[in-house]
Amino acid sequence: MRILLLLLTVFALCSFSLEQENPAARQPRPLNLMPWPADVKTSTGQMLVDPTFSVSLHGSDPRLKKTAEIFLDDLRRHTGMLPLDFSVNDHPEQGHPALSITSGQANKEVLELGEDESYKLEVTLSGATLTAPTTLGVMRGLQTFLQLVEITPQGFAAPAVAIDDKPRFPWRGLMIDCGRHFMPLDVLKRNLDGMAAVKLNVFHWHLSENQGFRVESKKYPKLQEMGSDGLYYTQEQVRDVIEYARERGIRVVPEFDMPGHSTAWFVGYPDLASAPGPYSIERHWGVFDPAMDPTRESTYKFLDGFIGEMAKLFPDQFFHIGGDEVNGKQWDANPKIQEFMHGHSLKNNADLQAYFNTRIQKIVAKHGKTMEGWDEILRPDLPKSIVIQSWRGQESLGQAAQQGYRGLLSHGYYLDLMQSTEQHYDVDPFGDGAANLSDADKGKILGGEACMWAEYVSAETIDSRIWPRMAAIAERLWSPQNVTDVDSMYARLDVISHWLDAYKLEHNTDYDEMLRRIAGSNHIGPLRGLTDVVEPVKNYARERGGTTEPTSLMPLNRVIDAARPESISARNFSKVVNDFVSGKMKPGMEAHIRSTLTHWRDNSDEIARLATNSSLVQEVVPVSQNLSALGAAGLQALEYLDRGEKAPQPWAEQQLALVQQSLEPKGQVLLMVAGPVQKLIQFSAGETPTELPLPRSAQ
Amino acid sequence: MRILLLLLTVFALCSFSLEQENPAARQPRPLNLMPWPADVKTSTGQMLVDPTFSVSLHGSDPRLKKTAEIFLDDLRRHTGMLPLDFSVNDHPEQGHPALSITSGQANKEVLELGEDESYKLEVTLSGATLTAPTTLGVMRGLQTFLQLVEITPQGFAAPAVAIDDKPRFPWRGLMIDCGRHFMPLDVLKRNLDGMAAVKLNVFHWHLSENQGFRVESKKYPKLQEMGSDGLYYTQEQVRDVIEYARERGIRVVPEFDMPGHSTAWFVGYPDLASAPGPYSIERHWGVFDPAMDPTRESTYKFLDGFIGEMAKLFPDQFFHIGGDEVNGKQWDANPKIQEFMHGHSLKNNADLQAYFNTRIQKIVAKHGKTMEGWDEILRPDLPKSIVIQSWRGQESLGQAAQQGYRGLLSHGYYLDLMQSTEQHYDVDPFGDGAANLSDADKGKILGGEACMWAEYVSAETIDSRIWPRMAAIAERLWSPQNVTDVDSMYARLDVISHWLDAYKLEHNTDYDEMLRRIAGSNHIGPLRGLTDVVEPVKNYARERGGTTEPTSLMPLNRVIDAARPESISARNFSKVVNDFVSGKMKPGMEAHIRSTLTHWRDNSDEIARLATNSSLVQEVVPVSQNLSALGAAGLQALEYLDRGEKAPQPWAEQQLALVQQSLEPKGQVLLMVAGPVQKLIQFSAGETPTELPLPRSAQ
Repeated sequence: MRILLLLLTVFALCSFSLEQENPAARQPRPLNLMPWPADVKTSTGQMLVDPTFSVSLHGSDPRLKKTAEIFLDDLRRHTGMLPLDFSVNDHPEQGHPALSITSGQANKEVLELGEDESYKLEVTLSGATLTAPTTLGVMRGLQTFLQLVEITPQGFAAPAVAIDDKPRFPWRGLMIDCGRHFMPLDVLKRNLDGMAAVKLNVFHWHLSENQGFRVESKKYPKLQEMGSDGLYYTQEQVRDVIEYARERGIRVVPEFDMPGHSTAWFVGYPDLASAPGPYSIERHWGVFDPAMDPTRESTYKFLDGFIGEMAKLFPDQFFHIGGDEVNGKQWDANPKIQEFMHGHSLKNNADLQAYFNTRIQKIVAKHGKTMEGWDEILRPDLPKSIVIQSWRGQESLGQAAQQGYRGLLSHGYYLDLMQSTEQHYDVDPFGDGAANLSDADKGKILGGEACMWAEYVSAETIDSRIWPRMAAIAERLWSPQNVTDVDSMYARLDVISHWLDAYKLEHNTDYDEMLRRIAGSNHIGPLRGLTDVVEPVKNYARERGGTTEPTSLMPLNRVIDAARPESISARNFSKVVNDFVSGKMKPGMEAHIRSTLTHWRDNSDEIARLATNSSLVQEVVPVSQNLSALGAAGLQALEYLDRGEKAPQPWAEQQLALVQQSLEPKGQVLLMVAGPVQKLIQFSAGETPTELPLPRSAQ
Repeated sequence: MRILLLLLTVFALCSFSLEQENPAARQPRPLNLMPWPADVKTSTGQMLVDPTFSVSLHGSDPRLKKTAEIFLDDLRRHTGMLPLDFSVNDHPEQGHPALSITSGQANKEVLELGEDESYKLEVTLSGATLTAPTTLGVMRGLQTFLQLVEITPQGFAAPAVAIDDKPRFPWRGLMIDCGRHFMPLDVLKRNLDGMAAVKLNVFHWHLSENQGFRVESKKYPKLQEMGSDGLYYTQEQVRDVIEYARERGIRVVPEFDMPGHSTAWFVGYPDLASAPGPYSIERHWGVFDPAMDPTRESTYKFLDGFIGEMAKLFPDQFFHIGGDEVNGKQWDANPKIQEFMHGHSLKNNADLQAYFNTRIQKIVAKHGKTMEGWDEILRPDLPKSIVIQSWRGQESLGQAAQQGYRGLLSHGYYLDLMQSTEQHYDVDPFGDGAANLSDADKGKILGGEACMWAEYVSAETIDSRIWPRMAAIAERLWSPQNVTDVDSMYARLDVISHWLDAYKLEHNTDYDEMLRRIAGSNHIGPLRGLTDVVEPVKNYARERGGTTEPTSLMPLNRVIDAARPESISARNFSKVVNDFVSGKMKPGMEAHIRSTLTHWRDNSDEIARLATNSSLVQEVVPVSQNLSALGAAGLQALEYLDRGEKAPQPWAEQQLALVQQSLEPKGQVLLMVAGPVQKLIQFSAGETPTELPLPRSAQ
């Protein structure tokens, strides 16, 4: 029965790691904190968190009570205790477990960049104290406390610990693109909950795109009326989101992309554009020709009115004008614009855009805001106050810093590229081209932002593209630079990922739901077995690799949409095989590998059966066949090893060709277990196991 | 590998049914409609529902567009297609699949009891037509269309079919008790979505209880300010819920329970009560002494003001005054009340309550409403217009009908009692004591309402107590009386249950989440294996059986809270064993039984390990040990059978004693597989297998 149970663990719980087989046997439990705090001292014993638990508040900030209420609500989500179990209490009853919270002062009415977020948290057997210079620090410390609370033999409890914590970077953000696909309010709110849980502090709200203009303008109502398909946020909803974020210590920075990425504006206001209309909402993806006309005063008059209205609606100090990816074709084709450039000694389109940016910066400043934009806006004629968000990388950031500009890193944090958590985790704002900057220049690098571009995400799938990887990026931006242990990160991420389920984030729960719909059946075991070990094609391959040209109307309901950006099952299997082929064998390891391979080999019959009922299963039948072949090859390799025979060269060559072939994407998903199977084959043939890069077609 | 895969199916997907092993092999698919329509004619072929699908609307009702928008939004949830894939279109493009909708007329501005809900739906290969006398019928027909759409080898499609449908009863409701535990708005809205999906048409909103007064009164603000712990619905929120329900064809009937169940009113207004205060919000469960004073004019003046205010807030024709469970102790103890009774020839407390009800009925009528109440209010001095909601049963309803009173059945539909779907499904408003009524008297029975009393449900657990069982009750109330095939019901319920996940109902998704919290680990396979085959104790046993007196502050986070009211795994296992012991053996059946028993036998070691980390697991260790013993006993029985030996009598007796012992609840949960194991033991011993009733202590 042992093997049976092991298999259950493997396929029902999507884990291949032998180490995790008997988690209950671990003592004491590791702390599942993410981001990892700056300083942690563990002690022995724990503080019970039971229905008599209460909170006492100290400090003059009137918002502190709301902070505590949100905390208590979160604690309820994580323990299943009920609303009235907890009370916010200045003088908790003697003898009951209590958390004493002290805030030095209130934060600015509108949260500002660089406000103190530090805190000290001490948990002892008799109670806990949380002190912070500001309420923002209290919020961060409360998230740490929440992550400490777990079920124990005595009930829910937090372990005795002393934590002294503060963020490494003052700007730790997530950008959500609501332009390409509109995201309903509940999606934003649950993601704000998740952001707060991992101590992020900036929600960058990408609100206009070729495919949609998403905010109500009262001054220019045709923006949303004609440019959004009816999918936009009212100003009341915007204020609601901002307040929701504020209560969680998160600033909200709006982005209105200009002069490019602006087709949706022109549907209602074609005169803004550099070529005559009419325009319609763009349905395709890419960089398009339409751009604002930077040569007409009417453009600036319009934008002055618009930015003025939005500057009031969005209280944050920063105002993002995008500024990326103008292809200049409309400018080239417009004689009046060419004439203007001539008259103003603007040598090329970059000069023209710089002229535009300079004008816009003055408007933004006139309305009391600091301008932010993508790398392209950086030109020495702009004041040093602006902030550069870099999709280009640390070198670009470093150059900006040396010129005196502040910046933040997004290169390496693009969640839409389907990279592994480890890849994102490895990217440091002070790494690569910024590594050798002076401390003063480093100080200009404010932090980073993950970007969730929305060509291929819907309200249903977006959570699984953001989470749990976002939590690891949040750790990179919060924790000390030397917190880089990848195995520790993955172990904690596994816990935090499900812990975030309590906020109704759907990155875990929507998986089976999507598979059931794809299968047209509740019996999704085989389909899950397959989908667990595939990933969507990487980077921009999805756009290129489809059978039809993708549009914003395309259903996002395929296996590629259900598949996780990173297959943890494949990662864990790869680790086990690495140990196996490098001689770090353990009892049960080979049986584990064998049962996994057997399951893969036999799974394709079930998939073939499901495919007879579903077009959405049909497209992954070739992947399933490849997985089956890999399973068979791996089993044969084990056979040779067990018999102490060296696998014959012709067989090995044939199998390695098969491995190569299985790397090609099918149905736009990649089979992620070819690498470890290659190693088993090489190992059985007496060769040195080698790593297997993805082919270019998969990237 | 065959057995391994089988086991995976068993434990990962919670299904023991051999028939369901290869669902993909079924051809053609059965229609997964619930409630089953009055008349269904299937045909061959299907209509594709692809991204070019559109809807055309015909009819003068301006609300029809909103109805279609909700439908399209639902279709998106069920297919994963995206918002703009669909358009509401008067003239759909030629050649594209389309649904043509015709509504004869708008419904009443405020939905009324008995409005026409019938519809005709025809799906052909080239398109579908839905026609209904009213928009309400359109709503019902659209739900049927949604349930027809499934993935096929050609993509999403609806099978060719002609349906002519109408409800059996005009009143098909769900009561949610928001008094004992407050339910946030999102809980109500997702349940309204679920109600609409199964064609229910009344949301009975139980809004006041000893434990909480849940609506904002502007006239008497101390009701919510002092009686709700801050947990109440603002009038704006109430209007929002009513509009949300209205858009889905659901009436909202408020209940304010009086003169009993009213402690929470008295916290702010002690003068209403029959004994001097002060009062505080009740934290315990049960029937309590506080009751309104029916002898003081000030009581009626207050209630006139209050009912007047609420009659405006809730537009429905019906106003529920509760009227149940007055123990009369405060009346007995109050000399002034006794004097009043004497002076008015009121012989007992029932007379006094009837006097109160007569006064209240006049107030309710004065404000334009029809009074509704529980059985207790029925007295001949009340006008025939009132409606009786019966917790007592069909006989009580029948007597009321014979006296000329309309009524609806709730006896048999109490969701808090943790009964099986089958038990609820068997209950018919025209059954038992109502079976022999005349047609005219039957006409007075309007339908029924399921009741979700909230002593032991939180926002987290309520969905799993309502769903999926509610869907079967909805079928009982909508479908023809002869739709009674229990196996068909369970087969369709399995599909509908997951189909409802799309509305973010959490009856499925919260299960693993709760188990992870209970285990303090993501590795919940063993705990799930156990919890899958237990049920909470039945009826009112939870209240009696706890180690501490239950209160409204008690955490609802235990295995009893995670366990489903009905173990489908146990039911399916029982069916397989029934076939096995009655000679209806099939290939694989014995292996299936053996692997299940083996898993049970071995599962307790894993549970014991988990228990070392969690107090919440500890309390079910005895259940796990019993399950292990049952597994071992069943395996031994199979051994005897396989060897063709009759099991020795002493062994059988010993094992049957063990079965008996395993029936006792432990940790307040019941092991639901003792019955089939008993049958295996009896079968192996050459005895006739017998059914096993639950012991009284478990009921």
